[in-house]
Amino acid sequence: MKNKPVIAVVGATGLVGSEMIAVIEQLKVPFSEVRLLASQDSVGEVYKVGDQESVVEVLDENSFKEVDIALFATSAELAKKFVPIAVEQGAFAIDNSRQFRMDKDVPLVVPEVNWHLVSDKTRLIANPNCSTIQLVPVLKAAHELAGLKRVVVSTYQAVSGAGKAALDELWAQTVAVCNQKDIPIEEFQHQIAFNCIPQIDVILEDGYTREEYKIINESRKILGLPELRITATAVRVPVFHGHAESVNIETERELSPEAFLRELGQREGIEAYPAADEYPMQINTASTDTIQVGRVRRDESVAHGLNCWIVADNVRKGAALNAVQIAKRLIEKFA
Amino acid sequence: MKNKPVIAVVGATGLVGSEMIAVIEQLKVPFSEVRLLASQDSVGEVYKVGDQESVVEVLDENSFKEVDIALFATSAELAKKFVPIAVEQGAFAIDNSRQFRMDKDVPLVVPEVNWHLVSDKTRLIANPNCSTIQLVPVLKAAHELAGLKRVVVSTYQAVSGAGKAALDELWAQTVAVCNQKDIPIEEFQHQIAFNCIPQIDVILEDGYTREEYKIINESRKILGLPELRITATAVRVPVFHGHAESVNIETERELSPEAFLRELGQREGIEAYPAADEYPMQINTASTDTIQVGRVRRDESVAHGLNCWIVADNVRKGAALNAVQIAKRLIEKFA
Repeated sequence: MKNKPVIAVVGATGLVGSEMIAVIEQLKVPFSEVRLLASQDSVGEVYKVGDQESVVEVLDENSFKEVDIALFATSAELAKKFVPIAVEQGAFAIDNSRQFRMDKDVPLVVPEVNWHLVSDKTRLIANPNCSTIQLVPVLKAAHELAGLKRVVVSTYQAVSGAGKAALDELWAQTVAVCNQKDIPIEEFQHQIAFNCIPQIDVILEDGYTREEYKIINESRKILGLPELRITATAVRVPVFHGHAESVNIETERELSPEAFLRELGQREGIEAYPAADEYPMQINTASTDTIQVGRVRRDESVAHGLNCWIVADNVRKGAALNAVQIAKRLIEKFA
Repeated sequence: MKNKPVIAVVGATGLVGSEMIAVIEQLKVPFSEVRLLASQDSVGEVYKVGDQESVVEVLDENSFKEVDIALFATSAELAKKFVPIAVEQGAFAIDNSRQFRMDKDVPLVVPEVNWHLVSDKTRLIANPNCSTIQLVPVLKAAHELAGLKRVVVSTYQAVSGAGKAALDELWAQTVAVCNQKDIPIEEFQHQIAFNCIPQIDVILEDGYTREEYKIINESRKILGLPELRITATAVRVPVFHGHAESVNIETERELSPEAFLRELGQREGIEAYPAADEYPMQINTASTDTIQVGRVRRDESVAHGLNCWIVADNVRKGAALNAVQIAKRLIEKFA
């Protein structure tokens, strides 16, 4: 790895891709060049990356020559095709899609939680799902303090998790409701304006959605607890930015709200809200980098239980920021 | 009780009170007169109740003479003062406030669940909190089939639960966001438009909100299970009408999703959604009378567990409808 690598952002014009460009600059990631790759539609668009201007090029089989780190913010289908090509051509790939996350040989990384899985032999790292990324650092703290026994998650997820067109749709639907016009529905299964939709991603055979299985399976993998007892209900809410999660944590041993909050407050990337009447909210997390935890209180329905409320910017820590944090650590460690 | 009683609606011009008037007509509750009572501000307003027109009168110490059934849709403070007066003057009182709900001698009633507590000696019935009413008939079904072991609830509650001014505030804030104006915040603790607020009612000493304790304590009382292991997180979402709840139910014995759905579908007042890709949503529950249950699926994190999604119109079944259903049964049974 060069200490000033060539970084490619694949899917650079999407919501997560363009946030990656911003985060590369904000985290002062060293680079000699940032190469922006996208579909033919966006070719020629110009983005500023630090002092440089970068023109969007078309993504094809020859895109990764001389690329050191390739950040993928594409669909699973495009990742399936192009991640192997990038690795083959010598790039280190960090993929934000679901394509490789559950592959046994691919580390699924939240840097604060399981960076130890990355070695100088690693060529591909998967970036977890947004709703998983903000959950696991909190679960890890509980596990280290008191042993995780069981976790029940209900999510309140912003429309930005579904991309730019989904943001536009919440706007368009809101305006339509205000003006009593027909509600345009294309990105979501149903009207999302002034409504909650208890479905994110497709519904699988046993009635769970794929999003719910991402939370369950990715959390187990990242925490290294393949038997972790965890269940989830994933719900889309009419919020532009930020995912919130109501999380019930049962532990093996005693864990007081005070001890948990103290520990969370000391952990990298986590912001704890110890005062009962102050709590994180989606409206305040847009463009923040931390995972914010509040409303921590004892659950008296089990011997050792806590309820908490976890909020983060799903496009930043939930996607772009986490991926760029991985890239930055790669450079620091292996350059 | 006369078979055509005089019915008083106290707080008749509020969101719940005016819905009570509509429901009295829709359920064809027999009456000789509907008397509308409110504060001085609303005196003289005229409402149509069936074939009659009724003029709003001021609520005072003499309001309940000759009233047979008094439906209270007021604050706890007003209920505290006027419910005893109504009972003293011979009325049968049904109170929607929190004032008497946890009194040992006052039955807290969802008719489908615990009507057996009402006798001809009863003079006061408390109407449960909206988020409780839609939960307990579902929990009761699970308990009768397989024995409740533990319940974890996360709510997605509409602004209408906070009254007319709260509905107006979501509108006003939405319009302000669309027009990039200052956001007016009066009814809620924070901006609710495009945000979720993890606080409903006041925060108590142990970090729980009063709303969360209503769910916990009222469910225990209505189900007759004072030791029921249940915990709750109550969240306000930017939705006008309808409360939704993500409910994790652990039972003592095996209970398949299919058996639970079959049972729910046969119960009075419940509508079950057995198909995985069809589920109830708040946008569709406005002005409906049923408690709607979908996304029922096995929770593999415990021996016998189910997740489900429960939605109802919080102003109707969650308040006005339940109260008027109680009034109707009183007339049917004791007239």
